[in-house]
Amino acid sequence: MSVTYPRGFKAAGDHVGLRGKLHPDMAIVRNLGPDSTVAGVFTSNRVFAAPVGWDRKVVAGGRAQAVVINSAIANACTGEQGDRDAAAMAAHLGQVLGVAENECLVCSTGIIGRALNMPKMTAGIDTVAAKLSENGGAEAAEAILTTDTKAKTVTHESTAGWRIGGMAKGAGMLAPALATMIVVLTTDAVGDSATMQTILSQAVDRTFNRLDSDGCMSTNDTVLLLASGASGVKPDPDEFAAALLQVCEDLALQLLRDAEGAHHDIEIRVTGAASEAGALEAARTISRSNLVKTAVYGNDPNWGRILSQLGTVPEDVLPFDPARVDVSINGVKVCKNGGIGEDPYLADMSPRECHILVELHAGQEEAHLWTSDLTHEYVHINGDYTT
Amino acid sequence: MSVTYPRGFKAAGDHVGLRGKLHPDMAIVRNLGPDSTVAGVFTSNRVFAAPVGWDRKVVAGGRAQAVVINSAIANACTGEQGDRDAAAMAAHLGQVLGVAENECLVCSTGIIGRALNMPKMTAGIDTVAAKLSENGGAEAAEAILTTDTKAKTVTHESTAGWRIGGMAKGAGMLAPALATMIVVLTTDAVGDSATMQTILSQAVDRTFNRLDSDGCMSTNDTVLLLASGASGVKPDPDEFAAALLQVCEDLALQLLRDAEGAHHDIEIRVTGAASEAGALEAARTISRSNLVKTAVYGNDPNWGRILSQLGTVPEDVLPFDPARVDVSINGVKVCKNGGIGEDPYLADMSPRECHILVELHAGQEEAHLWTSDLTHEYVHINGDYTT
Repeated sequence: MSVTYPRGFKAAGDHVGLRGKLHPDMAIVRNLGPDSTVAGVFTSNRVFAAPVGWDRKVVAGGRAQAVVINSAIANACTGEQGDRDAAAMAAHLGQVLGVAENECLVCSTGIIGRALNMPKMTAGIDTVAAKLSENGGAEAAEAILTTDTKAKTVTHESTAGWRIGGMAKGAGMLAPALATMIVVLTTDAVGDSATMQTILSQAVDRTFNRLDSDGCMSTNDTVLLLASGASGVKPDPDEFAAALLQVCEDLALQLLRDAEGAHHDIEIRVTGAASEAGALEAARTISRSNLVKTAVYGNDPNWGRILSQLGTVPEDVLPFDPARVDVSINGVKVCKNGGIGEDPYLADMSPRECHILVELHAGQEEAHLWTSDLTHEYVHINGDYTT
Repeated sequence: MSVTYPRGFKAAGDHVGLRGKLHPDMAIVRNLGPDSTVAGVFTSNRVFAAPVGWDRKVVAGGRAQAVVINSAIANACTGEQGDRDAAAMAAHLGQVLGVAENECLVCSTGIIGRALNMPKMTAGIDTVAAKLSENGGAEAAEAILTTDTKAKTVTHESTAGWRIGGMAKGAGMLAPALATMIVVLTTDAVGDSATMQTILSQAVDRTFNRLDSDGCMSTNDTVLLLASGASGVKPDPDEFAAALLQVCEDLALQLLRDAEGAHHDIEIRVTGAASEAGALEAARTISRSNLVKTAVYGNDPNWGRILSQLGTVPEDVLPFDPARVDVSINGVKVCKNGGIGEDPYLADMSPRECHILVELHAGQEEAHLWTSDLTHEYVHINGDYTT
């Protein structure tokens, strides 16, 4: 179902020849209204792809009728030609659907620094647009995948009568060989674009932005929310925000669990901090330590690497006394007061989920995020991607 | 020769039973004077090892007679017991040599979060101190190694009559399984500790601090400079600074070339920046990208990952226009004006050295640093270290 679960949407996906194998490589999602409200959150990378630049303008206008997504080529670092190609994709989609080009969104994912094959792109848009269907959600969710092993979809229905659907690929910060996380959310709720934008930004900040597999930020990361208003119901904002948060959390965990090359899903939780921002920065710093990530891969409760990484967070960001820090791995307090705690080998690291808890005893705030371990498969996938 | 090349020094190294195998695991360097000037640079990690805390106090006093270095256990994250053990090492060394304990330095390298076996340490100090010799420099340089494949030593003689010698292990930011970079430099030049400290800090900043293999900062990194004054010559400060810089650069490159698991030495040079600090931050950010490091491992000139990582540097740190950036890999300008340049496969990535040049065209300043690629061996070494 995915993006066609809410009323007012059609979708389709197909193989249009962008990838060498018989893998579907293009999807279109069409919003049939009556509303064409849109919100979007994009990569904060200063080097962003051409489609991100295009979509930012569309989202600023508050209205979108459709989105086309291709894999294989990211259309990033492609200069003015890339901008022209992104605009041409939107123009062709608008022409085929009979809507304004500045209400057409485009997403690309794949290799950076290569130009799109535009004849294949326009022919592909013709092919996929001809297949648009109210039952096309599952097909579209398949068509946006690259090396994901399974489609990621979600649905939610409110007792008030509105629905949310969604699909995701990736990638993103999880299996960055794929270069990009792309998420398309749909709803038949009624809402203005400013409200939708606020709710979407908050949900993304607490879900997708709390995944950090290798600290690498994509040039193409995109999360879109399209609202058709077809339910005729204007939801309670708090209920809608809670639902959207739940939907994003669901997709984020699906992305994490399908991260290429990962053997462990690692939750890093920092408690007892003076500020949530400081706790989050500490968790992020620990999540980016290759020494921590390889240790978890090796089922090695090497807590010294966690404490060592924690010590690199500047004091103004996160005040704490190293002599008061406790660290637990999967429930075993391996470090007490900054020193030796329980026997680390009591920590069972064989489960896929690994929970690292850092208790600072320096305040009341906390934060957590998820990362993946650093494995041989990660090196293999990322050492031999474009070749 | 190493640390015993300058006059006024004795050294020794031996296997004293700290490591399981018959590998030498303890070294002592003795300064016989007439001066006992000392300078030191230590890890900036807030979580620092007990010996670092001890040595900072000794260096603050400006005088040191000797240093003892052990491998196997880092004496980090060992709480008050660790502090007592570091002090006891210094006290025992002072007693054996007949010098004040607060002029005795201690360095430890190895696993974090385990306590030293103090009976073995004191017996080891007795054993090694009994062997101190003016020809012991090479033996000492062997005894501080852990998984290094060869000893790193350096010597320099000035026409003015003074000498510098040095030894290094590591490690550090290069092969962080080893947990620590330890460098001991000796000179028979005459100089006060304040001047020596300034010169040493500048040299470390431009050499060892420009190596960054995986962004992980050790709890134990230590660079010491002991000056005996035995040449009787007070050197020209500029000449001495230039010589010390050259000595540190030499040892730093030896560390880089012996980095465990590395297949490539990667130089990242950022030019045309508004400030040197900004250029260095950009080079450091690129050097910490696992996507860049795995691409180099795979001999893959995937320049999009370099540009994508560059885009994560905040604009206030490094102002630049992504549409003006050029990137060259081993002399081939694979990215021009932020877009597609020459055919990336013209870049020969088979040599051990890989040179990445990022031209920002946003100023006149530049900086460079060295990193290593991310290989299967890195994952293997660091995924199975304490177990």
